[in-house]
Amino acid sequence: MSEKLRIGMIGAGRIGKLHAANLVNRVPDAQVMAVSDVHAPAAKELAHKLGIPAWYEDYHRILEDPNIDAVFICSSTDTHSPISIEAAKAGKHIFCEKPIDHDLDKIQEVLKAVKESGVKYQVGFNRRFDRNFKHVRDVVAGGGIGDVQIVKVTSRDPEAPPISYVKVSGGIFVDMTIHDFDMVRYLSGSEVEEVSTFGACLVDPAIGQAGDVDTCIITLRFKNGALGVIDNSRQAVYGYDQRVEVFGSKGMIAAENETPNNTTYYTCDGVYREKPLYFFLERYNDAFIQEENSFVEACLKGQDTPVGSFDGLQPVRIAIAAKKSWQLGGVPVKVEES
Amino acid sequence: MSEKLRIGMIGAGRIGKLHAANLVNRVPDAQVMAVSDVHAPAAKELAHKLGIPAWYEDYHRILEDPNIDAVFICSSTDTHSPISIEAAKAGKHIFCEKPIDHDLDKIQEVLKAVKESGVKYQVGFNRRFDRNFKHVRDVVAGGGIGDVQIVKVTSRDPEAPPISYVKVSGGIFVDMTIHDFDMVRYLSGSEVEEVSTFGACLVDPAIGQAGDVDTCIITLRFKNGALGVIDNSRQAVYGYDQRVEVFGSKGMIAAENETPNNTTYYTCDGVYREKPLYFFLERYNDAFIQEENSFVEACLKGQDTPVGSFDGLQPVRIAIAAKKSWQLGGVPVKVEES
Amino acid sequence: MSEKLRIGMIGAGRIGKLHAANLVNRVPDAQVMAVSDVHAPAAKELAHKLGIPAWYEDYHRILEDPNIDAVFICSSTDTHSPISIEAAKAGKHIFCEKPIDHDLDKIQEVLKAVKESGVKYQVGFNRRFDRNFKHVRDVVAGGGIGDVQIVKVTSRDPEAPPISYVKVSGGIFVDMTIHDFDMVRYLSGSEVEEVSTFGACLVDPAIGQAGDVDTCIITLRFKNGALGVIDNSRQAVYGYDQRVEVFGSKGMIAAENETPNNTTYYTCDGVYREKPLYFFLERYNDAFIQEENSFVEACLKGQDTPVGSFDGLQPVRIAIAAKKSWQLGGVPVKVEES
Amino acid sequence: MSEKLRIGMIGAGRIGKLHAANLVNRVPDAQVMAVSDVHAPAAKELAHKLGIPAWYEDYHRILEDPNIDAVFICSSTDTHSPISIEAAKAGKHIFCEKPIDHDLDKIQEVLKAVKESGVKYQVGFNRRFDRNFKHVRDVVAGGGIGDVQIVKVTSRDPEAPPISYVKVSGGIFVDMTIHDFDMVRYLSGSEVEEVSTFGACLVDPAIGQAGDVDTCIITLRFKNGALGVIDNSRQAVYGYDQRVEVFGSKGMIAAENETPNNTTYYTCDGVYREKPLYFFLERYNDAFIQEENSFVEACLKGQDTPVGSFDGLQPVRIAIAAKKSWQLGGVPVKVEES
Repeated sequence: MSEKLRIGMIGAGRIGKLHAANLVNRVPDAQVMAVSDVHAPAAKELAHKLGIPAWYEDYHRILEDPNIDAVFICSSTDTHSPISIEAAKAGKHIFCEKPIDHDLDKIQEVLKAVKESGVKYQVGFNRRFDRNFKHVRDVVAGGGIGDVQIVKVTSRDPEAPPISYVKVSGGIFVDMTIHDFDMVRYLSGSEVEEVSTFGACLVDPAIGQAGDVDTCIITLRFKNGALGVIDNSRQAVYGYDQRVEVFGSKGMIAAENETPNNTTYYTCDGVYREKPLYFFLERYNDAFIQEENSFVEACLKGQDTPVGSFDGLQPVRIAIAAKKSWQLGGVPVKVEES
Repeated sequence: MSEKLRIGMIGAGRIGKLHAANLVNRVPDAQVMAVSDVHAPAAKELAHKLGIPAWYEDYHRILEDPNIDAVFICSSTDTHSPISIEAAKAGKHIFCEKPIDHDLDKIQEVLKAVKESGVKYQVGFNRRFDRNFKHVRDVVAGGGIGDVQIVKVTSRDPEAPPISYVKVSGGIFVDMTIHDFDMVRYLSGSEVEEVSTFGACLVDPAIGQAGDVDTCIITLRFKNGALGVIDNSRQAVYGYDQRVEVFGSKGMIAAENETPNNTTYYTCDGVYREKPLYFFLERYNDAFIQEENSFVEACLKGQDTPVGSFDGLQPVRIAIAAKKSWQLGGVPVKVEES
Repeated sequence: MSEKLRIGMIGAGRIGKLHAANLVNRVPDAQVMAVSDVHAPAAKELAHKLGIPAWYEDYHRILEDPNIDAVFICSSTDTHSPISIEAAKAGKHIFCEKPIDHDLDKIQEVLKAVKESGVKYQVGFNRRFDRNFKHVRDVVAGGGIGDVQIVKVTSRDPEAPPISYVKVSGGIFVDMTIHDFDMVRYLSGSEVEEVSTFGACLVDPAIGQAGDVDTCIITLRFKNGALGVIDNSRQAVYGYDQRVEVFGSKGMIAAENETPNNTTYYTCDGVYREKPLYFFLERYNDAFIQEENSFVEACLKGQDTPVGSFDGLQPVRIAIAAKKSWQLGGVPVKVEES
Repeated sequence: MSEKLRIGMIGAGRIGKLHAANLVNRVPDAQVMAVSDVHAPAAKELAHKLGIPAWYEDYHRILEDPNIDAVFICSSTDTHSPISIEAAKAGKHIFCEKPIDHDLDKIQEVLKAVKESGVKYQVGFNRRFDRNFKHVRDVVAGGGIGDVQIVKVTSRDPEAPPISYVKVSGGIFVDMTIHDFDMVRYLSGSEVEEVSTFGACLVDPAIGQAGDVDTCIITLRFKNGALGVIDNSRQAVYGYDQRVEVFGSKGMIAAENETPNNTTYYTCDGVYREKPLYFFLERYNDAFIQEENSFVEACLKGQDTPVGSFDGLQPVRIAIAAKKSWQLGGVPVKVEES
């Protein structure tokens, strides 16, 4: 392998553009060799803008290129698992956006292909690289709060996605809560055994008509005996609310939101602080860069990636259990039965 | 009625002493006339210390005294409902410590007696008078966060009670969470329809052996459609953790813990803030005084008490449902079925 | 001496009423025996309201009463020193509101009379009893920040006093900054050697026309080598701004303002916190009670008062130096030369 | 001019490396063409590391290159003014690290040369680009606090520089406080008329022996009538303490320190927050990037730079006055007389 990791980008949509720009400008050990997109002009435009040498309509051109070491799969969700399998067979290291798939069998096939090929595989759970959540995890892992007893995640989007998206996304549990399912596994260091879901449609009746909920509280029981809770809303009018708290036998550690600055403004009308950063592009800007550097470093050094293929499987299993519990009106559902 | 409310104290234990001292020193419109306790020396000692003119072993002496307008029932829990009924029949206004009873039928009898006699009745849910929670409620009631969607209560004691107490208290849901059940009703302005409880024994195995849990997360569905969650622990090593958060269509309001002072201390080892006030006597010191003044004022002015007898009934019903859900492994239980 | 300290109140104005009410309701070891005021109806009204047995027009009736152990001098500033001397000669312990006098010679006479008589003397620098500032002092005195290097005091009133008051108060340095001069002595544990004052009239031109300033920054050099700074404004539109910070060789400790509650309110327009408590009656409510209890305890136990007569002298000397420096356009002035 | 600003770097020391790396990686519209350093291997190494096409020992090679539009002067302070003049005459836009010079006459010559040549000139006062201070300035400039009355700057380094540096730096006022003099001009929107300096040597006696102070408080009077104060220490053991506060007729706005993350950690020993970011490389990392982008944009668009040559002159004048006041024991000194 060369000094730098030579990367092919598959998909030039919003998240593909984000990763490509970061890889070019913020990841010193990455070298983006090519970009493909089913919509060829998007690939061409991105290549031109970032000075990427090659662009294609067909991602197979990337998989076939012996000068490419790794791929970033940023195409539509339904293509994640088949391209992952093809890329693994082509011997490319793989960074795959989440979720790998909504179907557990397909994810299992990816895991099998990855295992057989021996390539590195990383799933795009970017929040693990947030400076706050990483510090919480480090303190927990270092024994700073003793035995974990309660894990709490607050995760609310600033505005609901379009109904067109809600109809095809697979629902709130797989498109939104899935990040939180990953987060509770990460923070607790334990697997989720059982979940109970209370859901409601309080933001927009159209979401309910589309068969989904926009507000939910999910209680979790972990294999190590700890309990957890996630609360989600599709619409927090004050911005992207992303907080976690882990409580244990020796203490608690909590992470607050990030803000545009640390000022406080006092007037006769009140005392004002800044709202949380608006959405994930602002809040997780640095986390994406850390994530990309971690993947590149793992590939170059032949180490395990920090978020492996099994980490791509488990949140989907929890999401399926959470959805089932919601359909049963909150009756607890075991994750392994899902 | 005289200018001041003439009060008889029934029970001179920890909470009776607290109320008596506050009534004497901090409630200008109260006049404590007498105190009784089944352990006569306790009544005598308290009377002497606070300058209360009379003390008795038998509380009937208080109920029979025509110069007494109201009673504070601070005796053991099992006596709350029978004394409430007797006091109502004697035409005394009643402040009764929580819970009225563990038995719904007995509480219903109290409600009936109170209704028939026309006396004022207030239950000792002191947290409603905390300056933080009251402000949260005021903002919610004023429409400041729009429609309520999510109510969150964190409530953790600094240390577990003795096992001897756990064995007779009726369990965590009636002795500890009951305050939180009152709080969610208060904050949401809605009744609880359904609960789901995940419980665990993580603090002390002896609590589990006594048939109880020491850690729990309870999800709630309100009649107005909102969702809620309470998390409890018998032991937060950093102190009494009492926070609430109400989230709605137009915003969120949250209350943090109170601390002994507002200082921050910076050294080369870190930046230190004060821990939360240690326990309820410190944290709710002012709330108790507000509570007592509210009762006295309601009686003197002939107004409704701020926490009536129905408010004494409902949290017990929720507690019973929560316990049943825990026994069923988290299966949701309707409150009206409990 | 009896079990309780028997007190006579001299002066039934705003601060006299405050002390009397606290002594009656919040200081268990105090017994208020009488109150006097040059305006007799004020004394009568206060006596009636608080159940004080006697009231007089002439304070000598209090000084002559052998059943009175101590006096609270809450009359007009010009009477503080003569009454202090008379009371000392009468053998009464003395709590005197600040300042003792504007004239250093008169204060020295008080000190002499107090010394000769052997009575206890306490000056009303209530802020030392604020829970925040006391904690800061405790940490500093305990070596928690090492050697003191910089002391900062921010002290701003919510609104300017009437011009009629400004004209007779002696000016900002003796009527307002004097509290801060006491505070820097208290926090640093050192005397002030030299001051430099920059003053300006930015709030109300009428204050300047009355020969005073409404905004000032005073730099201080302490005998132990440390530096300090006080900033004052007569009008902070957001409320009473009272903060301190002490910086040293091993760290820093800072005290923030107190607020009506600890809530945070999030809307699409911003994040709101509570404003500081409005003025000294709200902010220093508990500090007054601590102050009064401290005096009573010192008298009953025969201990030194926490703020003695020398503590009444020094801030006046600093104020005189600060005023002189302002008149000299900021040229530093030694306190001992003042 | 080409689409990108073609830049030559003069000086490859610590700050030169910082700017070069940012220009290459974080300033999309910059193109670094060459780097020079009197120590040629430093230039060579930097060029190789960042892929800069050319490197020289003699900066004249850069000034003579017609394909270079602008220079970054990052060489030793004594060379700032002569190279600025040469570069201006060569028609290169100039970014010059602070200070331009310690000698006012030499700075005036630079201003003259810049004016005559018409090139853009920006001085490296990076803190203006800090997200916090910029927001404070924006609120002040927008009238959010009304008329400015008090400006406060706390600026403390985490550790003292080596004595060898102290001996040649020109002293604390020109090497450290100069940033704060720029900051108060920026925040207040007014020039400084007069200063009074209290200095002390409390951190390290060797600093005093070198003829400097390590702790100081500087009071300022602004031309618009407002007052200000800066406090400095060479050693804050808890980290880089950089806070500002602007108080006015309609309110106050204050900026707190930045921290590595927003977590709070609770144990039985206390509540811990993160210390401030350690030093300027961490704290002002983003500010440097904003600064560089601003310069490049101003040059490319032919606009005024945000920190012009006059902004390089004024803080030096204030520093000279501040030093003189310190030498006079705190007697106020007019800036225009300095």
